[in-house]
Amino acid sequence: MIQSVMYAIPLLGVVGLIVMAIKSAWVNKQDAGDKNMQELAGYIADGAMAFLKAEWKVLSIFVVFAAALLAYSGTIHEVNGKEIHGSWIISIAFIIGAVFSATAGYIGMKVATKANVRTTQAARTSLKQALKVSFTGGTVMGLGVAGLAILGLGGLFIVFLNIFAGLGTNTVKTAIEVLTGFSLGAESIALFARVGGGIYTKAADVGADLVGKVEAGIPEDDVRNPATIADNVGDNVGDVAGMGADLFGSYVATILATMVLGQEVVVADNFGGMSPILLPMVICGLGILFSIVGTWFVTIKDDKSNVQNALNLGNWASMALTVIASYFIVNWMLPEGIISLRGVEFTKNGVFGAILVGTAVGAIMSIVTEYYTAMGKAPVLSIIKQSATGHATNIIGGLSVGMKSTVIPILTLAAGIMGSYYCAGLYGVAIAAAGMMATTAMQLAIDAFGPIADNAGGIAEMSQLPPEVRERTDNLDAVGNTTAATGKGFAIASAALTSLALFAAFVGIAGIDAINIYKANVLAGLFVGAMIPFIFSALCIQAVGKAAMDMVQEVRRQFREIPGIMEYKAKPEYEKCVAISTEASIREMMLPGAIALITPIIVGFTFGPEVLGGLLAGVTVSGVLMGIFQSNAGGAWDNAKKSFEKGVEINGEMFYKKSEPHKASVTGDTVGDPFKDTSGPSMNIFIKLM
Amino acid sequence: MIQSVMYAIPLLGVVGLIVMAIKSAWVNKQDAGDKNMQELAGYIADGAMAFLKAEWKVLSIFVVFAAALLAYSGTIHEVNGKEIHGSWIISIAFIIGAVFSATAGYIGMKVATKANVRTTQAARTSLKQALKVSFTGGTVMGLGVAGLAILGLGGLFIVFLNIFAGLGTNTVKTAIEVLTGFSLGAESIALFARVGGGIYTKAADVGADLVGKVEAGIPEDDVRNPATIADNVGDNVGDVAGMGADLFGSYVATILATMVLGQEVVVADNFGGMSPILLPMVICGLGILFSIVGTWFVTIKDDKSNVQNALNLGNWASMALTVIASYFIVNWMLPEGIISLRGVEFTKNGVFGAILVGTAVGAIMSIVTEYYTAMGKAPVLSIIKQSATGHATNIIGGLSVGMKSTVIPILTLAAGIMGSYYCAGLYGVAIAAAGMMATTAMQLAIDAFGPIADNAGGIAEMSQLPPEVRERTDNLDAVGNTTAATGKGFAIASAALTSLALFAAFVGIAGIDAINIYKANVLAGLFVGAMIPFIFSALCIQAVGKAAMDMVQEVRRQFREIPGIMEYKAKPEYEKCVAISTEASIREMMLPGAIALITPIIVGFTFGPEVLGGLLAGVTVSGVLMGIFQSNAGGAWDNAKKSFEKGVEINGEMFYKKSEPHKASVTGDTVGDPFKDTSGPSMNIFIKLM
Repeated sequence: MIQSVMYAIPLLGVVGLIVMAIKSAWVNKQDAGDKNMQELAGYIADGAMAFLKAEWKVLSIFVVFAAALLAYSGTIHEVNGKEIHGSWIISIAFIIGAVFSATAGYIGMKVATKANVRTTQAARTSLKQALKVSFTGGTVMGLGVAGLAILGLGGLFIVFLNIFAGLGTNTVKTAIEVLTGFSLGAESIALFARVGGGIYTKAADVGADLVGKVEAGIPEDDVRNPATIADNVGDNVGDVAGMGADLFGSYVATILATMVLGQEVVVADNFGGMSPILLPMVICGLGILFSIVGTWFVTIKDDKSNVQNALNLGNWASMALTVIASYFIVNWMLPEGIISLRGVEFTKNGVFGAILVGTAVGAIMSIVTEYYTAMGKAPVLSIIKQSATGHATNIIGGLSVGMKSTVIPILTLAAGIMGSYYCAGLYGVAIAAAGMMATTAMQLAIDAFGPIADNAGGIAEMSQLPPEVRERTDNLDAVGNTTAATGKGFAIASAALTSLALFAAFVGIAGIDAINIYKANVLAGLFVGAMIPFIFSALCIQAVGKAAMDMVQEVRRQFREIPGIMEYKAKPEYEKCVAISTEASIREMMLPGAIALITPIIVGFTFGPEVLGGLLAGVTVSGVLMGIFQSNAGGAWDNAKKSFEKGVEINGEMFYKKSEPHKASVTGDTVGDPFKDTSGPSMNIFIKLM
Repeated sequence: MIQSVMYAIPLLGVVGLIVMAIKSAWVNKQDAGDKNMQELAGYIADGAMAFLKAEWKVLSIFVVFAAALLAYSGTIHEVNGKEIHGSWIISIAFIIGAVFSATAGYIGMKVATKANVRTTQAARTSLKQALKVSFTGGTVMGLGVAGLAILGLGGLFIVFLNIFAGLGTNTVKTAIEVLTGFSLGAESIALFARVGGGIYTKAADVGADLVGKVEAGIPEDDVRNPATIADNVGDNVGDVAGMGADLFGSYVATILATMVLGQEVVVADNFGGMSPILLPMVICGLGILFSIVGTWFVTIKDDKSNVQNALNLGNWASMALTVIASYFIVNWMLPEGIISLRGVEFTKNGVFGAILVGTAVGAIMSIVTEYYTAMGKAPVLSIIKQSATGHATNIIGGLSVGMKSTVIPILTLAAGIMGSYYCAGLYGVAIAAAGMMATTAMQLAIDAFGPIADNAGGIAEMSQLPPEVRERTDNLDAVGNTTAATGKGFAIASAALTSLALFAAFVGIAGIDAINIYKANVLAGLFVGAMIPFIFSALCIQAVGKAAMDMVQEVRRQFREIPGIMEYKAKPEYEKCVAISTEASIREMMLPGAIALITPIIVGFTFGPEVLGGLLAGVTVSGVLMGIFQSNAGGAWDNAKKSFEKGVEINGEMFYKKSEPHKASVTGDTVGDPFKDTSGPSMNIFIKLM
């Protein structure tokens, strides 16, 4: 029975990948529009590929270097008298993790750069068709990420069990230890992809807006703006490829942390005690199937239907089905009677309870994030109102909304940690995070649909298509803004829950009893750890500022030196702007990435594991808070600005685009851009990687 | 010998108070200028008194209520067969602490509202004289605060030792336990005074600027602006009275935390084992004397002299003298051989080493803060440069400077915690904080001189005195901006060091062994604790926003309904604006204050001491970071704006007031106002009170 479950896991991943391939083929088959549209889409696709290639070139050097370091520092196991270099194997796992993570990003970007122009073309007929194309594009991404992760984890686990089969009782422990290499590889790539992509997208966005909208007075996504292609490329490399790599890493880390703890769980089951290790993989594998089922619900009747509701329906459906399935799986795999971990006793009902808690935390986080960032709700309205008295009050309003938005998520998280611990000890906390992440494929489909719709709108604008096309893509884009924010809330919640599981695993591995805050050096570690997200944010924000300045110079130069751009007579040199964004983002992602990787190593070696524990706790707590604060403030500012497009009422007066309050709201949006798309979302990878 | 030392302590406080009285009389004797100036100064003094009265009315209810609660929950001691209600005594100590804290604020405000107009008058003759008057005003405040604190602590300690003399070996322990009531009373008042004063000053400032400068186009501090008196009152109630109460609380808490730990120290001295308890009081008492000596160095030759250098000289002199004196005092009071606390052994050289570490940490914090906020240095220059591309980049620049400015202070703090612990265990950490705070009288003199100079400038502007007068006061004011920032850096550093001492004391009192972060509920506590400074900041910022809106409405109404204001024919109704600021600040200080007081009580009772420990650690770490971030970002924005007054060069072009980059810098300053003067500086009291 254990064999069949073990082999079923990678199979579930394969099923996800097959469905992905079918959906991907369907997207490719759709009409890509006229020649002009195809040409523009081609520029975007080429730019995105160019970035990925440049990024991979740098990262491959890093991966080889890090793999060598891992091989050097690893342990050597003796199996049946033969030496097996566990260290070499961990290096290989690291490389596979890195490659899988990069592939996940690549798949998403590839389909997104096909789906964008096809969504534009579909939007010429109906909103229903445009949603179908863009959401299917997102689904390809979601299934690719989840499928690869489950295939990788499940497959490598089987391979490693076989390699270390001679170690006897240490077989499972060693296999999981080596498997952490896979997770480490995935998270490393995720951090660079997220930071690099985040800098790219916002440098291009801010740069394009500053010269195009403000100085030259041409609309967003205007074909005359040399930076407009770079801006659209940015959506693909940041919000799609970056996010894909990010969630791949989070998903793998969460499952693995549960496996690490699961290995310590004492249980008399029919799986040779391995059910707690297999459980997170099984649940997440089933989550892929139910995410596929959930996508069937995402459809609308006509142009007047509510897109957000359709997405929500799909989301809730896949979550509900996964929870129900978990109930039966837990009942089947875990035995009656007492299960225990490090002296804490619980039952299988407790384990299911923890999964339920995790799902509830995820759902609440999504709802709260939606409230704080959606148009028409009190927080965004308050920012709109404060835009009436100028730039400064708009900023104060946004900062204040962001800070306030931390309260309920943090209380929910704290309750979730306590609740899942109450249900099933530390294993409960870990499995709660895994339960929350089970429908990652669906989450990601909803999340990735946003930038595809955004790109579709850009192509519509650049191709000067009729206004009803842009109206349809705008409708999708606005929903995409909110789903982007809820996706980030979800990612942060999972990071926080996973962090506790990782802590527990760390304490076990490091062989220390406690991380005692009132010890002087632990408190010092806590302070330094909490400071790191601040400097990390500052570096990200600053990187965007610098790269945007480069972009501004280049766009100004082209307007000056290429005659006839403004009269549509000459084509701007799009590729120069793409190159600038690419170079800047690759250059600027180095320092923040290095801080994340090197600090814990230095602290760990210099001051020992307990101080390192304090440092990690500081990073986690302050990272989660800064992440929620920045993502939500950024999302709220963005939608406050968007609200002016349809006009807003402030103290009885109507204000539209180009009014003074609108200008103030643009300031907030620009400040929020690096907040929400560069430093904010990097926090959760950062936390887990550390 | 123990008797003479014990009685010398309150005597040192009395010396401070006598010198204060002499200096205060000198200020009063100075020429207060012509009738017009006196009238304006009278409005400011009356407004400040009105606020204090309103604040006291509310706080007296709170104090009575809290004292009753303390009396109810306290323990009863049996002394020689008679019952002594320790709880009643702790209530009385609480009330005395509250009254002393309020008095400290009152003294400062009283002298500041006298010194302001006299500084204006002195500035008619020379910068030297103006500095002398304003700095003497600040000195009165500094000596008042430090003198009252040492008198209160030293005096009450003697009284309580006598009351509990019958408890035998428990006498000292009980006396110190009851003495915590004094500290608690002081900190409670400090929090409300700081928050209330902070809201007052910024509501008036922002409100006055928004309508006066932006809408009506009249200069700052123009006599026609109805909110200008409220703005000047704000400097006195926020930056003087609020800060005085604040530092009184910090100073008392730091000394007391050292006494609590000192009581546990095992030492074979000539003071019956009490030298570690008396040491912090003696050092801080001597710090008063050397602060007086330091003030002699604060003088300049003529109008071209550097004011900042004179203040620095005085500051370094008093610090150096106090450190030297500490060396002799430590050598005299502590014995040769091993001293120990909770199993950690150290020597008297270690104790002196810790004092040295504390002083060094304070000095580094001051220097770093000065670097990040002073005009002409790289951080402020970077904000100026980013103002050229608009409001948004100015904001991004300031936020990024603020975040980056946390790095060196946090590393310094961490090193300070580790270093002082290495020198003398937990007692070392506490005495390091006490050493740092020893020259509080001098720090406060430098700090309080700023708002006096600011007020003097306001009065000069309102009285339409010749431009060279305003030039002299502006010179003082600019220096005051930097000293305000360094003062905040100092206060935060002391809060962080004290917090560890308080932790250690808390762990001892609560009878728990450890606060273990990797326990689920402790981590939950850590998360919630770290969130609290975010919501606290949000509430403070929001309160300023709301109160400023009220002010804007009122000023607009007066401009509309009182004809002839703009032509100097009719007087604005200053008192209405004063009343609005007063009411708003009293109303809005309640919720943040209540959160600080009630949260730990609820968490402690519901989840027990270990979770409370996690919560407090979270508050401390996140509070220190948010405090440094907000204070420095605000200070840097302010001085970036101020730089435009003399003109700045950006990319080879000169920009002055009313240019576009200057407008962007005004936005940053307005955002920074509540950051640096309301929520930022409240953090350190908040941390210690919790």
